[in-house]
Amino acid sequence: MSQQYVIAFIGAGAVGGYYGARLVQHGREVHFLLRSDFDAVRTRGWKIKSHQGDFAVPGSRVYAYSDPRQMPKSDLVVVSLKTTANDQLQTLIAPLLKEDTAILTLQNGLGNEELLASLFGAQRVLGGNAFVCVTRTGPGELHHQAEGAIRLGEFKGGRSPRAERICEIFRAGGIDCDVLEDLRAGRWHKLSWNVPFNGLGAVMDVTTDQLIATKAGTDLVVAIMREVIAAAGALGISFPPDWIDRMMDKTRRMGVYPTSMQIDRQEKRPMEVEAILGEPVRQAKARGVAVPLMESLYRTARAVDAGEPRNPKPESPKSESNPKPE
Amino acid sequence: MSQQYVIAFIGAGAVGGYYGARLVQHGREVHFLLRSDFDAVRTRGWKIKSHQGDFAVPGSRVYAYSDPRQMPKSDLVVVSLKTTANDQLQTLIAPLLKEDTAILTLQNGLGNEELLASLFGAQRVLGGNAFVCVTRTGPGELHHQAEGAIRLGEFKGGRSPRAERICEIFRAGGIDCDVLEDLRAGRWHKLSWNVPFNGLGAVMDVTTDQLIATKAGTDLVVAIMREVIAAAGALGISFPPDWIDRMMDKTRRMGVYPTSMQIDRQEKRPMEVEAILGEPVRQAKARGVAVPLMESLYRTARAVDAGEPRNPKPESPKSESNPKPE
Repeated sequence: MSQQYVIAFIGAGAVGGYYGARLVQHGREVHFLLRSDFDAVRTRGWKIKSHQGDFAVPGSRVYAYSDPRQMPKSDLVVVSLKTTANDQLQTLIAPLLKEDTAILTLQNGLGNEELLASLFGAQRVLGGNAFVCVTRTGPGELHHQAEGAIRLGEFKGGRSPRAERICEIFRAGGIDCDVLEDLRAGRWHKLSWNVPFNGLGAVMDVTTDQLIATKAGTDLVVAIMREVIAAAGALGISFPPDWIDRMMDKTRRMGVYPTSMQIDRQEKRPMEVEAILGEPVRQAKARGVAVPLMESLYRTARAVDAGEPRNPKPESPKSESNPKPE
Repeated sequence: MSQQYVIAFIGAGAVGGYYGARLVQHGREVHFLLRSDFDAVRTRGWKIKSHQGDFAVPGSRVYAYSDPRQMPKSDLVVVSLKTTANDQLQTLIAPLLKEDTAILTLQNGLGNEELLASLFGAQRVLGGNAFVCVTRTGPGELHHQAEGAIRLGEFKGGRSPRAERICEIFRAGGIDCDVLEDLRAGRWHKLSWNVPFNGLGAVMDVTTDQLIATKAGTDLVVAIMREVIAAAGALGISFPPDWIDRMMDKTRRMGVYPTSMQIDRQEKRPMEVEAILGEPVRQAKARGVAVPLMESLYRTARAVDAGEPRNPKPESPKSESNPKPE
């Protein structure tokens, strides 16, 4: 593996920008497809305030694009586009593909691997959970507040030399990365947090700490987690017995934390309702699992999302600044 | 029936203040129990901007009290206290009672008649729906924006000379009033509007027009109305076949409208979660009716209510400024 291994980040908002910049920081050549921050990143590069130590990569070391047709054919396409722009994946990714290009989606929720597989072939697709809390603070400027790990795996399941190699690239970029043997299980594990906290956070317009500050809020979060776990169970996915306690402890340690979906609501951007709520509900119901709280939350979030007056819709790979570990 | 017929309003916020002032305007003697607006009303009376014509009643014609023990024994006690202060009903009403005092609650939601019956005897109790949109705009100052009717009936059901007489008093005060033969049905009819609009309005922090501006919002409102109607059905209460259409038309005509529960959330006051959502859910479940959307809404509203940082809690008969027709 050499520098000839070409990496493209599609939708370099907060998450894509952060991971891409880490790779550049450690000597990798990375090609970023940007929209709103294109000019800033092309000229000044990335500037990142990080809990692991601030760093910057100059514009001279960053390959920035606003049009995917100008980008080189890539060995690895990392998709960090917001899922609400998934209708643009075909247009944005197709120009980058060669015979053996791997596509890794770091997007939120369910359904992204399936969509990429239907567009470009299942054999190309990997998925990953990005456990990172990073926010866009200005053009080309990010704040990496907490965490940072990636857990990725093959869409088709199982370990592969390819997944190991991609992990190795991330690790060489100073990123905690491991391979998931069961990507689907990893997705549902993460969903057990995302469904209640993103869903209620956006619908109620509250931060995670506000949500768990009361018994009524904690009880509701836990009840929704139980529904997610039951739905996953019907798909053959199990959870450690102390999972809910661990998730709640983790949430308490996060302090004041607005979820990406709450921020999207506040900033009048489309919310990732389908990926985080709609698709899990549909999968649960398809297996005959009753998820009344999830379903009600989904419907209410849809109503919030539909009703929110919108800022002028950004064209595709703009839009993020979503903090995570979601 | 003469001026010796003594009427007391307990909790003269927007609703109680409005109806009481109407009676005074038309020559009735009315005794108001107030807390926050006591000084203003005692000295300056009520000043009401109304879509039916502005009017004022001077302080010299208003009997204002801050302590129920100073009030005269009454023939009719009208309860317009917020339901979140229902724990004070015993203290506030007991001093006013004589042998045949009637108690009429104009409060929101379910459970108020039952509580009054348990405290003071079922034979005393009547209930009414106040279809009025009135807001407190300042001390002793109200804005009567729309509607104004009262529909009242006996807690025990059926028509009674007493209910007719009370209606007659309201009508003599320029208030549209009719007797409900089935109070319970009237309560559930009104709930079919209050549950979705107050519930979602508070949880999502949206006005009624925002809620029905989208298909997702309208569908959710209608689905919740259907649950309320199903729950009422199990109690033997029926609805006209075009009820939902009529409710939606009515809501459209209301224009920009924040429900009382949304306003309470925004002004950091306790929300009437139990009367409007909790009690209907409990009654539905007790009859074995599945109300998953109502239940989820109730739990979410409880979490919103519990988590909201509170303004210093007002002592009882203060607090309102809740607009209605709820």
